[in-house]
Amino acid sequence: MNEFDLIKRYFNPATQPAVADLGIGDDAALLTPRIGYQQAISVDMLVSGRHFFADVDPWRLGYKSLAVNLSDIAAMGGIPRWFTLALALPSADAGWLDAFSRGLFHLAQLHGVELVGGDTTRGPLTLSIQIAGEVETGTALTRCGASAGDDVWVSGVLGAAAAAVAHRVEGLPLVPDVLMRCKDRLEMPTPRVALGRALRGLASACLDVSDGIVGDLRHICERSGVRAELFADALPVDPVLTSLPLATRQKLALAGGDEYELCFCAPTTHREQILRLALELDLPLTRVGRMLAPLAGAQPVQLVDEKGATLVFSHGAFDHFGA
Amino acid sequence: MNEFDLIKRYFNPATQPAVADLGIGDDAALLTPRIGYQQAISVDMLVSGRHFFADVDPWRLGYKSLAVNLSDIAAMGGIPRWFTLALALPSADAGWLDAFSRGLFHLAQLHGVELVGGDTTRGPLTLSIQIAGEVETGTALTRCGASAGDDVWVSGVLGAAAAAVAHRVEGLPLVPDVLMRCKDRLEMPTPRVALGRALRGLASACLDVSDGIVGDLRHICERSGVRAELFADALPVDPVLTSLPLATRQKLALAGGDEYELCFCAPTTHREQILRLALELDLPLTRVGRMLAPLAGAQPVQLVDEKGATLVFSHGAFDHFGA
Repeated sequence: MNEFDLIKRYFNPATQPAVADLGIGDDAALLTPRIGYQQAISVDMLVSGRHFFADVDPWRLGYKSLAVNLSDIAAMGGIPRWFTLALALPSADAGWLDAFSRGLFHLAQLHGVELVGGDTTRGPLTLSIQIAGEVETGTALTRCGASAGDDVWVSGVLGAAAAAVAHRVEGLPLVPDVLMRCKDRLEMPTPRVALGRALRGLASACLDVSDGIVGDLRHICERSGVRAELFADALPVDPVLTSLPLATRQKLALAGGDEYELCFCAPTTHREQILRLALELDLPLTRVGRMLAPLAGAQPVQLVDEKGATLVFSHGAFDHFGA
Repeated sequence: MNEFDLIKRYFNPATQPAVADLGIGDDAALLTPRIGYQQAISVDMLVSGRHFFADVDPWRLGYKSLAVNLSDIAAMGGIPRWFTLALALPSADAGWLDAFSRGLFHLAQLHGVELVGGDTTRGPLTLSIQIAGEVETGTALTRCGASAGDDVWVSGVLGAAAAAVAHRVEGLPLVPDVLMRCKDRLEMPTPRVALGRALRGLASACLDVSDGIVGDLRHICERSGVRAELFADALPVDPVLTSLPLATRQKLALAGGDEYELCFCAPTTHREQILRLALELDLPLTRVGRMLAPLAGAQPVQLVDEKGATLVFSHGAFDHFGA
């Protein structure tokens, strides 16, 4: 099977939405962007053994590869439109390619995004998806708009994806049923596209949680010129983790990447609207912190307990500051 | 050096043109496409040891990575606008990154294209660039428009890049001076952007020569529903190869990839205009074949000698058919 056969067979399904004027098969795809919109462009590269385990189910890998990119468009408040795929493969394994492409197109169809171009080559298993979304001009959610006094919110529940990684890498004990649900969260994250759309006009800043909420929130602080206080006890830890010790649960929820939930800031006057939105979308939206005025020498993100005492988070765990 | 430092240090130069409304540093870049244009989108993936030698000069690798993508936009008649870079690196080698990024931005500046997003990660050296160009709506050059009777043209001269590969892989003997010039062609191809722009309205079909002119011309035949006759003796073999036997020179010019010249079809009525264009651009444009009506059972691309006799091209060499 040569490269052209492989593309025809696995990456050119008849079910694709017709976003492009000219799709796969030329030197470039041709598209007509819509007037009144800005384009949101994002790219991710996933390397075997680093971003996914080499033995991951290929359907799920196809799904997740696109999900993490859809999540970036969600974080901007955009409508995902099209994507390209660059894929290096050790061999043209028909079963693997079939499952990978079905997982990819399953999610692509759900969101009406079209694969408009790609490149496949032999090499160590590596893939890169670049996605484009559209957002009404001037309404995109960025990392730059948070103000002191804003609430910090997070969607969904946290920690399960990190638990699946900790099970595999550090031997964190999980019973089979819990492990299965944690693996589902790790391998099939739900990009929060509808939430991102609804947050335009409500949120002052937004990003997706891909490196752990503490590290990610730091990006908002840097770009917005403020700092944040995160309420350790308010974090919505995934109920699937209930059997684990509290400290482990909080650690997983705080530092775990791969969540692909949205973390956003909003003025306190929007609390009611945001809680109504949670009901409409049937998705928990939890207030987990607040933004503060910059203070020389202070950490950009501080953890506090329910009494307001500062906690220190280091080496993947946290303790009372000075204790 | 973590990922964020690395991006700041090497991939966020102040000299970038401001194509994006919001550049590197958020979940996605924001761009406003121009009204009246279609976007041309292309992606390439380059794997160490497959698309380039692992010991290639990193400045040249940075240059070439972008050049091959610019070439795709050139083949569509587009104006290159912006690109993203996904990069997997075995280690964050400062010297390598410095040279790579300088080579990349050297060419980016020449063409006024902006790096608007990227992803860097640890992994086997692999890189993927996705580029976007703009072309006035309805004027893009594609592979679909060739008609029987059209001339086939190619820009520049062919064979030197292939000779550099053949020297390295098969031990093709080249004197040092010739080898150096062949390596220059292989490692620093010139994307024919100005030519692509000028061919709008003149060419009926176009692509860039990346897999050898015979194989590439086949794509035009398939997409346009015609076939082609290629004049073996008319091929513009790079004069740097003069010392090689004729058969070797022709073989290199016919089958060699990595040329990144444009191969295009045009009605015979445009011959004079095309030759004038060659003078204006100071770039050889050579008539190397003609398109023919489809014929059941015939090869999509046939090689003929100066007397019109069919040659057969196989196993990387060609002989008189039936001889």
